[in-house]
Amino acid sequence: MSKLLIVGTVAFDAIETPFGITDRILGGAATFIGLAASQFNIDSSIVSVIGGDFPKEYLDLLSNKNIDVSGIEMIKEGKTFFWKGKYHNDMNSRDTIVTELNVLANFNPIVPESYRDAEIVMLGNLHPQIQLSVIEQMVVKPKMVILDTMNFWMNNTLEDLYRVIKKVDVIAINDEEARQLTREYSLVVAARKIHEMGPKYVVIKKGEHGALLFNNDNVFYAPALPLEEVFDPTGAGDTFAGGFAGYIAKTGDTSFENMKNAVIYGSTLASFCVEKFGTERMEKLSNQEVHKRLQQFKALTQFEIQLT
Amino acid sequence: MSKLLIVGTVAFDAIETPFGITDRILGGAATFIGLAASQFNIDSSIVSVIGGDFPKEYLDLLSNKNIDVSGIEMIKEGKTFFWKGKYHNDMNSRDTIVTELNVLANFNPIVPESYRDAEIVMLGNLHPQIQLSVIEQMVVKPKMVILDTMNFWMNNTLEDLYRVIKKVDVIAINDEEARQLTREYSLVVAARKIHEMGPKYVVIKKGEHGALLFNNDNVFYAPALPLEEVFDPTGAGDTFAGGFAGYIAKTGDTSFENMKNAVIYGSTLASFCVEKFGTERMEKLSNQEVHKRLQQFKALTQFEIQLT
Repeated sequence: MSKLLIVGTVAFDAIETPFGITDRILGGAATFIGLAASQFNIDSSIVSVIGGDFPKEYLDLLSNKNIDVSGIEMIKEGKTFFWKGKYHNDMNSRDTIVTELNVLANFNPIVPESYRDAEIVMLGNLHPQIQLSVIEQMVVKPKMVILDTMNFWMNNTLEDLYRVIKKVDVIAINDEEARQLTREYSLVVAARKIHEMGPKYVVIKKGEHGALLFNNDNVFYAPALPLEEVFDPTGAGDTFAGGFAGYIAKTGDTSFENMKNAVIYGSTLASFCVEKFGTERMEKLSNQEVHKRLQQFKALTQFEIQLT
Repeated sequence: MSKLLIVGTVAFDAIETPFGITDRILGGAATFIGLAASQFNIDSSIVSVIGGDFPKEYLDLLSNKNIDVSGIEMIKEGKTFFWKGKYHNDMNSRDTIVTELNVLANFNPIVPESYRDAEIVMLGNLHPQIQLSVIEQMVVKPKMVILDTMNFWMNNTLEDLYRVIKKVDVIAINDEEARQLTREYSLVVAARKIHEMGPKYVVIKKGEHGALLFNNDNVFYAPALPLEEVFDPTGAGDTFAGGFAGYIAKTGDTSFENMKNAVIYGSTLASFCVEKFGTERMEKLSNQEVHKRLQQFKALTQFEIQLT
């Protein structure tokens, strides 16, 4: 079993979907990653920053999932990062209504001593300079560094982004981001170009269409479970990443065959995340429920073909 | 081994893609279905109509694939159905530039005597009244009737379409068509509504995102093989349907487990179809190439998960 270091936002989200609307609730990439990874009973730690307005009960919620929160710095006089968004009817697109960086604007991440030798590092979506700073604080080269990012950094800090991409083993981004980063429409060609930028493994998240894992000529395609209803997609991508990273940390096995399983675990956990608002479903998710859904995933994709 | 009856267009296509442009070449739903099904060395017959301008070499091409063409009526003084289309850069959308129905306008399908007891019937995209007429000519109730259709018939002949949908076992349509037919965004809910219209099996084709097979609470998801380049998508959906129907006819097994394999075969054959213009790739496709790609499909989707 390996230690998992998570870097990312811990935030307030306010969400509107066709099904309802929330006040400020717990959100942030690191929160979703941490909750997903906590399914594996591993040692994990979140590095992030919050304001004095952040409720203790939210920190307790993470601690109770056995997540080390000593790396979540509290700026007492500051306010926590806040995002407000509204999803369209098809749930595949959303408008950002408010983004208040607040304490995130001057975030200087400090990795706790006890996690500077973490074997697995999950860099949630953040300014690439912050992601780089975390890599540089590691005293032992991690077995696997996984990067998430988004189009905002491609538009605004591309050179910094290239620098961090060069240093990671796995990049996990969505299809539109992969196309933007490489200016290639074919995801096969896009993945090849991203390989050339550094990462040995490229995970392309396609939302309701599943996820692809590339490692040179090896490809694996995990479909998403077809859902009757997507209630709130917020955090699904982070939950996928947390499931992926958590499974790798749990097994300590970074082979392509095992990464397939990590993708399946990520997809499985993400399929729960979207069932309720924010972190609600992930907070109460049992191991038994996860195992049951993994069986559904098997039934969904496995076949025994007779060659004719 | 069962007999396969195919009804659909045999046509001229003129295609423009970002990779090039063709003159009038061989096309039509029944053509692509027949070529795909011919991979299984089954007895198959096409019911269609052509004009006096249709080259004998095209008919020979089908005959040489062991497809019975006696049900392809030639109207000497008429002209063959012609479609001209242009694909956009992303290959997922296209404009129809010309549609000349010609002899198709008054098509009165006659099923050859020897195929009125065919066990498997594949109804390619056509006016629902023509599809119905074919079902009514069967003297023995087929083991499985498979229906393809498109949004045009939903817009213009919805009542007729409902009548034929009620009489088929399998419907194979794309995701947008399923949504239009049911006014439901969720494909799970859409499939359930289509079940209520008649078909026990619903196949939803998602293009580059693969295909879903529904049978009440059973779901199977066959991804599409990620391709470096899609040269020409024309006929891919029909090729999928032909592979599906052909495999069912070959095995004579209509269980859900076997229909999973039929979906995989359909996806495999469709992945070849898009590699060249029109029917070019399918005309020369070898059994060995198909088997090799089926192995790629297995590698793409199969996993051995350890529950944690």
